[in-house]
Amino acid sequence: MSGADGVSARMRAVEEAHRAYYAAWERGDTAAATSLWVDSDDISCTFPGVPGVIGRRAVFEQVVEGIVLTAGVQFIFEDLRIVVRGDVARLTCVENVLLPGTLSLAEMVDLPTSRLAVTSLFRAVGADWRLWTHHAGPVMGDVERRTE
Amino acid sequence: MSGADGVSARMRAVEEAHRAYYAAWERGDTAAATSLWVDSDDISCTFPGVPGVIGRRAVFEQVVEGIVLTAGVQFIFEDLRIVVRGDVARLTCVENVLLPGTLSLAEMVDLPTSRLAVTSLFRAVGADWRLWTHHAGPVMGDVERRTE
Repeated sequence: MSGADGVSARMRAVEEAHRAYYAAWERGDTAAATSLWVDSDDISCTFPGVPGVIGRRAVFEQVVEGIVLTAGVQFIFEDLRIVVRGDVARLTCVENVLLPGTLSLAEMVDLPTSRLAVTSLFRAVGADWRLWTHHAGPVMGDVERRTE
Repeated sequence: MSGADGVSARMRAVEEAHRAYYAAWERGDTAAATSLWVDSDDISCTFPGVPGVIGRRAVFEQVVEGIVLTAGVQFIFEDLRIVVRGDVARLTCVENVLLPGTLSLAEMVDLPTSRLAVTSLFRAVGADWRLWTHHAGPVMGDVERRTE
């Protein structure tokens, strides 16, 4: 495999890990979602509107709570960009959170937006890529444009 | 130098790079601030309330604009945590943005908060650590507690 093909293959593998994580979240599979994190106490996760947390216990508590709270959610991604550098990969995108029925992120986490700016860092673990760091912050501007 | 001392020294060096960046911002030194980024077009920066941008030109435009807009700003950090893994380091903290006079982040970027959750990634460049990725998202909950 040439160098460029190797990079493409690795970028695809990172995107697959990203999509597997969100697919697990969408189907409410907390075990699958948490298994896609690096098995280490230095993982960090920052959800929209709140300070970040570090460590398996704190991260998994938030992830499981988030999955349970957002049952029926669907995610749509825009502007997905992946950079691979050695055994670290960075994925950035805008995440659109579609909740069923009358649910809204505003009720859940005091955010008047369903758009999030995401930065996720993955690490190579054997042949797999696992989440090491995730930060999702609210994109505020679009809300105003929508309601105008 | 023992392994543990080496890790401590690297963590201190990462914190120094972080503080040098914010010190440059506080004194309005756009050249110093941009020089503390990795010299690469894969740098990414996500400021509070807006989607992230990638690449020197887009990142530096935002950084320079941010520095100019927030003249007189002071930053206070809480819960600063650093993890070094090989040539990558992750710094997380809560950043309190103190603006002079009547300025507020609300006027500048539609954010009703001066607290930001920060995730910064640094890369080792020779003996230095440089910013590779920065994501600052608004912490919303505290605003409500303050205004209650």
